[in-house]
Amino acid sequence: MKINNFQLSTGPLPGSEKIYIESANGKLKVPMRKIEMSDTIDDNGKIFHNEDVIVYDTSGPYTDTNYKVDLNLGLPKLREEWISERNNTIELENLSSSYGQKRLDDKNLDELRFEHIRTKPRRAKEGKEITQMAYAKAGIITPEMEYIAIRENQEIDKIKSDYFKHQGDSCGANIPEKISAEFVRDEVAKGRAIIPANINHPESEPMIIGRNFLVKINANIGNSPVKSTISEEVEKAVWAFRWGADTIMDLSTGRNIHETREWIIRNSPVPVGTVPMYQALEKVKGDVEKLTWELFRDTLIEQCEQGVDYFTIHAGLRWHHIPLTLKRVTGIVSRGGSILAHWCTTFKRESFLYEHFEDICKILSQYDVAISLGDALRPGSIADANDKAQFAELETLGELTKIAWKYNVQTIIEGPGHVPMHKIKENMDLQLELCHEAPFYTLGPITTDIAPGYDHITSAIGAAMIGWYGTAMLCYVTPKEHLGLPEKEDVKEGVITYKLAAHAADLAKGHPGAYFRDWAMSKARYEFRWKDQFNIALDSEKALKFHDETLPSEGHKKAHFCSMCGKNFCSMRASKLLKDKLEAEE
Amino acid sequence: MKINNFQLSTGPLPGSEKIYIESANGKLKVPMRKIEMSDTIDDNGKIFHNEDVIVYDTSGPYTDTNYKVDLNLGLPKLREEWISERNNTIELENLSSSYGQKRLDDKNLDELRFEHIRTKPRRAKEGKEITQMAYAKAGIITPEMEYIAIRENQEIDKIKSDYFKHQGDSCGANIPEKISAEFVRDEVAKGRAIIPANINHPESEPMIIGRNFLVKINANIGNSPVKSTISEEVEKAVWAFRWGADTIMDLSTGRNIHETREWIIRNSPVPVGTVPMYQALEKVKGDVEKLTWELFRDTLIEQCEQGVDYFTIHAGLRWHHIPLTLKRVTGIVSRGGSILAHWCTTFKRESFLYEHFEDICKILSQYDVAISLGDALRPGSIADANDKAQFAELETLGELTKIAWKYNVQTIIEGPGHVPMHKIKENMDLQLELCHEAPFYTLGPITTDIAPGYDHITSAIGAAMIGWYGTAMLCYVTPKEHLGLPEKEDVKEGVITYKLAAHAADLAKGHPGAYFRDWAMSKARYEFRWKDQFNIALDSEKALKFHDETLPSEGHKKAHFCSMCGKNFCSMRASKLLKDKLEAEE
Repeated sequence: MKINNFQLSTGPLPGSEKIYIESANGKLKVPMRKIEMSDTIDDNGKIFHNEDVIVYDTSGPYTDTNYKVDLNLGLPKLREEWISERNNTIELENLSSSYGQKRLDDKNLDELRFEHIRTKPRRAKEGKEITQMAYAKAGIITPEMEYIAIRENQEIDKIKSDYFKHQGDSCGANIPEKISAEFVRDEVAKGRAIIPANINHPESEPMIIGRNFLVKINANIGNSPVKSTISEEVEKAVWAFRWGADTIMDLSTGRNIHETREWIIRNSPVPVGTVPMYQALEKVKGDVEKLTWELFRDTLIEQCEQGVDYFTIHAGLRWHHIPLTLKRVTGIVSRGGSILAHWCTTFKRESFLYEHFEDICKILSQYDVAISLGDALRPGSIADANDKAQFAELETLGELTKIAWKYNVQTIIEGPGHVPMHKIKENMDLQLELCHEAPFYTLGPITTDIAPGYDHITSAIGAAMIGWYGTAMLCYVTPKEHLGLPEKEDVKEGVITYKLAAHAADLAKGHPGAYFRDWAMSKARYEFRWKDQFNIALDSEKALKFHDETLPSEGHKKAHFCSMCGKNFCSMRASKLLKDKLEAEE
Repeated sequence: MKINNFQLSTGPLPGSEKIYIESANGKLKVPMRKIEMSDTIDDNGKIFHNEDVIVYDTSGPYTDTNYKVDLNLGLPKLREEWISERNNTIELENLSSSYGQKRLDDKNLDELRFEHIRTKPRRAKEGKEITQMAYAKAGIITPEMEYIAIRENQEIDKIKSDYFKHQGDSCGANIPEKISAEFVRDEVAKGRAIIPANINHPESEPMIIGRNFLVKINANIGNSPVKSTISEEVEKAVWAFRWGADTIMDLSTGRNIHETREWIIRNSPVPVGTVPMYQALEKVKGDVEKLTWELFRDTLIEQCEQGVDYFTIHAGLRWHHIPLTLKRVTGIVSRGGSILAHWCTTFKRESFLYEHFEDICKILSQYDVAISLGDALRPGSIADANDKAQFAELETLGELTKIAWKYNVQTIIEGPGHVPMHKIKENMDLQLELCHEAPFYTLGPITTDIAPGYDHITSAIGAAMIGWYGTAMLCYVTPKEHLGLPEKEDVKEGVITYKLAAHAADLAKGHPGAYFRDWAMSKARYEFRWKDQFNIALDSEKALKFHDETLPSEGHKKAHFCSMCGKNFCSMRASKLLKDKLEAEE
C-alpha cells in the first residue's frame, strides 16, 4: 500500500521557520519553530528591531523545508544510534508475538502494510535495565534527557523584563529558572516525570511529561468499527503534530488495528500511546469472556515490538470496586473499564491485569514502554464526580505505581473525566498524595454535562485549571465528544483548544519561558503589526481568515484599527496616540 | 422602515415548549422553557416516566407559538401596568433631550425609524424615588421582585436526590435553598444585586444580577463604522435572546446609533445596556476635544427616555491614574477609557464624568437606569494584569458605588479583561472588598493572549472561574475578538460558550437548581435517549448535526452506541449490560 502524500499539510506554518538548537557538544539538534517578527516603525520612521519568537515545536520533520516528506518511507530514525550505542539491547530475528508474526506472514495483508515495517525489533539484553528511569536512578544522563533540557528552555533567556518575574503561582510545583539535564534526570529518577521512549520507536523526538515542565497535551486518533481508513488516520496524526500534539494515542477499535498502528508509529515524531485491551478485544471479536492473560500478553509484546511508547492499562480496577458503581448515574464510562468489569463479574475474580501486573511490568521494562494507569472508574457525569468508586481505584493506582517503579517502568496516572470546578482540586491533591507524585494525565475534566458539541470548551475549563494545579498532560476532547468520531477539523479544534489551556496553565504555574509569547503577541497587537499577530497565534490560519472576512485588503494588514471598532473607536490607537503625546510633553 | 421578519429564527427550540408559571396571586406569568423527555423503556418493555426539564428562558415571546412575531410592532409591554399603577411617574409631552427631539422631528429619518417609537417617555414625578433599590430599601416587594423569585427557582423542587445536596462550594456566596421575593428585595436593598428595569423599557422581562442568583451573561451587539445595518443588528439581538443572552449591550459606534437603538429596545425582552460615551463621541464626529458635560448629559437623557436599562460609565478614571498606564504593554484598551484619558490629558483636569457623577446619578434615578461602572483601565494583556493602574481605578469605583447608592441608583462594577488564572481570584476578592459587594460584571477574563480566533475559549476559562468565585454577570467574548466585528454565527458561538461557563459556575457555587439539567442529560446519555440529549443540550441544533454527520438515520437515534466507539466498544452500553446482569443476580 502507498499513501498519497499530497493530501498532507506540510512545510512551515506562516511566518515561521524550523530551526535546530545544538547542544554544547554539537551532537544534538533540537528542533524549534522560529516565528519571525517584523520591525516596529514609529511615527518618525525610526526602526526598532523585535526579537523573533521561538517556540516549542511538536511538528517533526514535516515542517522542515529541507526534508522531503514521504509517509511510505517513514521518518528518520533520530534515536537509533543512541539506542544501539548503549549496547544493552539486541535485535531479534523474529517478532516475539505470535499474532504479530502471523500478520507479518499473511500475504493478503501486503496491500495494507507499511513497506518498511520494523521486522527486527529490539529488546533488552538479558539482565539489562534499559529504561530512562533505570538510567536516571543510576545517575546516567541520556541524550534523551539532554535533548529535553534544551527543548524545555523555550525563550528562557528572553525573560529580562519585570513582567516575567515572579509571575507564577507554583501550586506545589517547583520549576527551576533554567531546566538542566541533571534536573531532568532527577525528576525521572524520582518518578515525577516520564520520558516515553520505546527503543522500537527511534523516530520519536524526546519529550517529557511531568509537572515541573511545560504542560503537555495528547490527541486521540484512531478508527472505529463504524468509520475511517488507514490513510485518514495517518493524515489526522500528521495534522495533530502540526498543530501541537505532544503525544498521540491510537485508539483504533475498528479493522486492521495492527497495520494502522505500524503506519502511524513509523511516521510519528511524538510518542504514541495505545490501550492494548482494545486490540485484545478485537482479536476475540468483541466477546469479553474470551479474553485471557495469554492473549493480552501476546498483544502487549506485539505492540512493544512495534514501538508503542506508552500503554493505558486498567489494572487498578479491583473486583470489589465494581459494586461501588451500581448507584451511579452513568456507571462505568471507560471503555477498558467496562470490558474488565464485565470480565471480573463473569469469572468472579480479579482481572488478569491486576493479577499479572508484575508480569506486565517485566515485559514493558524490556522495551522501555511506559505505563499509563487507566482510570477505569472515572466519572462520566457531574453527578458521579469524586465518588467512592473513583477514589478507591485511585488508591490502587498508587499501589501499582510503587510496583511499576520497582521494575523501573515509567508511570503516569490517568484522571477524570466529568468534574464540576469546585471538585477539581481534590482530584489533584489526592492523586499527588496517593500516587507518590507520579505525573497526572487527565481527560479534561469536563465541567458541565449540558453542552455536547462544545465539550472541547467545557473540558478546556477543567483542563486549564487542573493543569495549573499540577497535571502534567491533558488529553484533549474534541467538539465531537459524546456524539461521534472526530474528523480532521475536529482534531485541529481539539488540539488548539488544549494548547491554549496548557499554555494558560503554564502561565499560572509560572513556567519561566511561558510569558514571552503572550508578551510578544500583545506588543504586536499594540503596534498594529497584524501579520506578526497572526503568526504568533496558536492558529495563525484562523486568525488571518477571521480578520480578512471584513478587511481583506493588504493595506489593512497595517491599519491602526480593525472592523470591530473602526478607526475613531480603536482604543489601542487612541492609547498609543495618548502615550506619544504625554511622552512628547515630558 | 420595515424589517422583514422572515429572516428571524423564531418558535420553540427542538423538543421544547414555552410555558408560564403563575404567581400565587395569579397576576404574574413567568416564562420558562419546558424540554419534554421521552420515557425510559427497559429490556422487558417496562416503561418509566422521565420528568420534563424546565429551564430559565431568556428568549422572550419569540419562542411562544401563540405569539405572532412582528419586529415592526415591537414586543408587548409586560411591565407597563406595574409602572403606571405605582403612580409615581409622569408621561412627558416631549422628549427632554434636544438631540432626541431633533432626530424625532427630522423627516429624513422616517425611513430608518421604528414606527411605534416611544414619544411620551416616563420620568419620576418630582421628589419621587422610583428605582427598584429605593423600593427595596423601603421594604416594598415589587412585581419585578416576585417575578424574579419565580424565575430563579428553576428546577428547585426536583432536587430530591443526594446528588444535589451539598454539592456546591459557595466561595462567599450565600444562596438560599429556595429564592423568595423577600430575599430578592433584601439583596437589592443591600446593593448586592440589581434589577435593570428602566421605566421606559416596559417590554423587558424582569431579571436579576447578583452573586446569590444564577450567573448571567451579556452579549454585545451593535454596528461599527466599518460594518452592519439596523436589520442585521436587530436580527443578531433576537438571535442572542434565543440562545440565552440575559442582557445585551448595544455598542454601536457606526451610523444612526439613535435609530438602531430604538429598534433594538422595542424588540428586546432582556435589559439593554449601552456606553453613552460612544454616541457622544459620534455626535462630535470623533473629535474627543469637543466632548462636553452638556453634550454627554443630553445623551444620557436621550437614552434614558428611549429605555436603556444600564449605562457603562467610566467615571472611575481619575486624571492621576493615567501616568500609571504609560509603562504598560498595551496601554488603555477600554474604548471609553482611552477617550476619557485623551480628554483629561488635553484639558489637564478630571473628567466630566467624575466631576458630574452626582448629577449623573440624579438623572439615572429618575428613570431607574442602573450604572455599570466601567473599568477604563482594565488590562489588555497578560503582562498588564492586576497592575497599579487597574486597582487604583477599582478603589475609585468603590467610592462611586457609595455615591450611586445614596441616590438609590443600582450599581454594578465592570472587571477585566486579560488575567492569567492565578491572578483571577485577587480580582474578585478586591472587588468585593473595595466595592462593598456590589455585583461584579467581567469581560472574560482572557487567560492567555496567544489564541486569537479562540478567545471565546481563552476567556471562558477565566469567566467560569471568576463566576465560581462570585462574579454575577459574564460579558461574552466571541471568536472574532481582536480580529473583527462578530457576525450572527459568532454571536451564537459566544453566547453558548458563555452559557456553559455560567452554568459551570452555577454548579461550582452550588446553586440549588443547577444540577438537575446535568443529571437529566447524563441519565438520557446512559439510556441512549439520543433525542432527549440533543434537546437538553445548550445547542440542540449543533448536537444533532454532529451526531448525524456519521449516523444520520432515524434508527440510530435509538442505537445503543455512536460512531465514536461503535457497538462493542461503547462503555455506556457495556456498563448498562453489566448493571442489568448484577441486578439480576441479586
